[in-house]
Amino acid sequence: MQNHQCPRTAGIYSGSLFFRIAKSSWFRYPVDMSETVQTVTERSRHVAPVLAACSGETISTALNAMADSLQQHAPEIFAANNEDILRSQEEQIDLPLLKRLKFDQPKLDGVTDGLRQLAAMENPLGKIQSVRELDAGLILERVSCPIGVIGMIFESRPDALVQIAGLCAKSGNAVILKGGREAMESNRILSRLLHDAGTSAGLPDGWLALIETREDVQALLTRHDDIDLLIPRGSNEFVQYIMHNTTIPVLGHADGICHVYLDKDAETGMAVDISLDSKTQYLAVCNAAETLLIHREAAARLLPPLHEALSSSGVEVRGCEKTRALVPALPATEEDWASEYLDAIISVRIVDSLEQAVEHINTYGSGHTDAIVTSNQAAAELFMRSVDTANAFWNASTRFADGYRYGLGAEVGISTGKIHARGPVGIEGLMIYQWRLRGNGQIVAPYAAGSKRFTHRDIT
Amino acid sequence: MQNHQCPRTAGIYSGSLFFRIAKSSWFRYPVDMSETVQTVTERSRHVAPVLAACSGETISTALNAMADSLQQHAPEIFAANNEDILRSQEEQIDLPLLKRLKFDQPKLDGVTDGLRQLAAMENPLGKIQSVRELDAGLILERVSCPIGVIGMIFESRPDALVQIAGLCAKSGNAVILKGGREAMESNRILSRLLHDAGTSAGLPDGWLALIETREDVQALLTRHDDIDLLIPRGSNEFVQYIMHNTTIPVLGHADGICHVYLDKDAETGMAVDISLDSKTQYLAVCNAAETLLIHREAAARLLPPLHEALSSSGVEVRGCEKTRALVPALPATEEDWASEYLDAIISVRIVDSLEQAVEHINTYGSGHTDAIVTSNQAAAELFMRSVDTANAFWNASTRFADGYRYGLGAEVGISTGKIHARGPVGIEGLMIYQWRLRGNGQIVAPYAAGSKRFTHRDIT
Repeated sequence: MQNHQCPRTAGIYSGSLFFRIAKSSWFRYPVDMSETVQTVTERSRHVAPVLAACSGETISTALNAMADSLQQHAPEIFAANNEDILRSQEEQIDLPLLKRLKFDQPKLDGVTDGLRQLAAMENPLGKIQSVRELDAGLILERVSCPIGVIGMIFESRPDALVQIAGLCAKSGNAVILKGGREAMESNRILSRLLHDAGTSAGLPDGWLALIETREDVQALLTRHDDIDLLIPRGSNEFVQYIMHNTTIPVLGHADGICHVYLDKDAETGMAVDISLDSKTQYLAVCNAAETLLIHREAAARLLPPLHEALSSSGVEVRGCEKTRALVPALPATEEDWASEYLDAIISVRIVDSLEQAVEHINTYGSGHTDAIVTSNQAAAELFMRSVDTANAFWNASTRFADGYRYGLGAEVGISTGKIHARGPVGIEGLMIYQWRLRGNGQIVAPYAAGSKRFTHRDIT
Repeated sequence: MQNHQCPRTAGIYSGSLFFRIAKSSWFRYPVDMSETVQTVTERSRHVAPVLAACSGETISTALNAMADSLQQHAPEIFAANNEDILRSQEEQIDLPLLKRLKFDQPKLDGVTDGLRQLAAMENPLGKIQSVRELDAGLILERVSCPIGVIGMIFESRPDALVQIAGLCAKSGNAVILKGGREAMESNRILSRLLHDAGTSAGLPDGWLALIETREDVQALLTRHDDIDLLIPRGSNEFVQYIMHNTTIPVLGHADGICHVYLDKDAETGMAVDISLDSKTQYLAVCNAAETLLIHREAAARLLPPLHEALSSSGVEVRGCEKTRALVPALPATEEDWASEYLDAIISVRIVDSLEQAVEHINTYGSGHTDAIVTSNQAAAELFMRSVDTANAFWNASTRFADGYRYGLGAEVGISTGKIHARGPVGIEGLMIYQWRLRGNGQIVAPYAAGSKRFTHRDIT
């Protein structure tokens, strides 16, 4: 279904090619950073319906043109990225940040692959979700359409910019991007190339915009009437800040305080394997477990091998009093239950019942991912129905909570919100629907007077 | 499918019955109005997952018990309502408001009918929306579930309180209600009876709460972490105020600036009928048309009969310069294009093209309902695809934009927002989904290492 072929562009560094590129259009239309955020968002709102009316063919052509353009302009992209890296090295930014900032040929190939895959995907717009006859000749359809204007705020990775721009184009949304300051030069050239390639293929001018400063973000948060959805990606504090400082709807997650609950009927080997994988398979991610809850009737059986496995993986165990009576552990405080360590630390609490485990999760959890390990199906069903979480798992690692693993295709993000979209969000999270009513002159008066009646017959 | 039988409760005013009721539980558990809003919202958040785990049977029993209880306590309800009416008469509130405040036997029968219909409806919770095999024995389901905690702020009608409480119960959501001050006594008794009847049938204590003052609403708007969705119903200014003063997601609509565009190929009779019905069938509603846009090539043909029909219905016409060259009309200003009259006034503008009509609508409209009248299908399709509106109509009156007319069942409200739900919103708008993953001990490590691969096979 999807096009994975994207050959490495050998020879793209040749001098003559660079010369040709250096004259290309993006140099003649530099990004105008003197525009106010109000101007930018108003234009986006104006452009959004024009973009929404583009055909699936136009959008696919645009996505392929975007991929072509990035590959053609690889040398300038790498040069811009190098500027960012040199400046960041001077400013002595953290090594992991520096690593994420690096945009090289493999990363370029990765994102252009992604754009071509999106181009090959079926058009998600204009899908008829339901058809209902209201009366003879009066047909109501619910049709998928873009949300409108998406504001995306993300950290330093320049590849995220390309990915996000692609997702927004595929779903017909105008997008306003704000990347990290570290990646300023990379973001400028990438957004300009993507914008121009898109418009050259028929997308409306202004479908993509870039803003740059923290002050711009402040201004963006106030543009309630222009922006339909904000998607921030970054640290907990950052996402939390966005969520609490704008009246624009926000899709995303701040904390990821995930739990594994080992029920009294948890099989020992499975309990250890799932706990260990949930905690250690990747420490610094939102779907890693931070707290283990253990049924008191299973604690003496499960805790020693669990402690052994965690300790030998270098994980520090912080336990409640009952835990510490069974295995060596530092004392866990109230603060631990509410902590997202993102580190080789785990808190352990022994609970009296499944209900107490659920209550603990609903009190301290972040509604991200919570798992139960048990061989008792009734207990598993009750747990999944009762935990207020986006991803409720039975006998599986919390680390499976991920758009790619769910098979959703390109991931927009993970939402712990409770409206619109929840958990891993694919391109569907960038869509909404419109009601379309097709008649032949029907008016409401005779229905209100009772001389005509609705049939309300579902056609699909 | 639905139970419409709800016999009038003859004899309910008899002295002995009143005596029995006067001793019933709700007198022993008066509404505690000294509680802070924080206490109320924190309890709601705590209660929500317990309510979410209730079975469909329990909820249906609760809804029927609620209907029974209201009918049994009719005399006290009417007595409380009478207090509200007397106080409001003293305070000389507007007659239409007074009319909406009145809660009598027919209105009681209407709302208890509604509760019994909800009880008879299929349980919308726990519906499996999709099933996907991620790998052998690792099954991902998307299951419908309640949103959590709904804050409903509405005006004086006590029947709205019952309707909203019923919708929230059916969809498994904890609800915090704030009604109009005028209906204070009615709201108190209704909410207490509904709450107690619900809990007696198995809903968790605190599933419904009532707050009363404007200060309470202010406090409610700050309870981002406890409330998942706010649904305000009331005046434009009121809804706008809520939307712009909280970081909690809001579902609803402020303005309803709806348009009818008469294309060059509009049939004269149909153009007149649809325009007239859209404007005059009910003046004071959000889906009434406020502006007519007319293609310049059709203006000379359409305007005279249109003007005749509107004028003889008592509608004041305000026109652009070109309109006024063809028919007598007051001048329309920029302000008119942005006005929701909710009155016997219409603004008329002659446009050069369909594109200009769309641009006008996307500039001045409120994204509620916009119609085109034309016999040209291509024009109609382009119009519907290009207008940024929740309800895009072809050859039908804007007045059809309504949950009941759409056959959605009980209506939560109409949303002009672009996420979660759009246009008329039925009970589905109070729902979201949870991802449930069922495994038999799977961990992520082997998939990350490449030794295992996902199958991603859709089962339904």
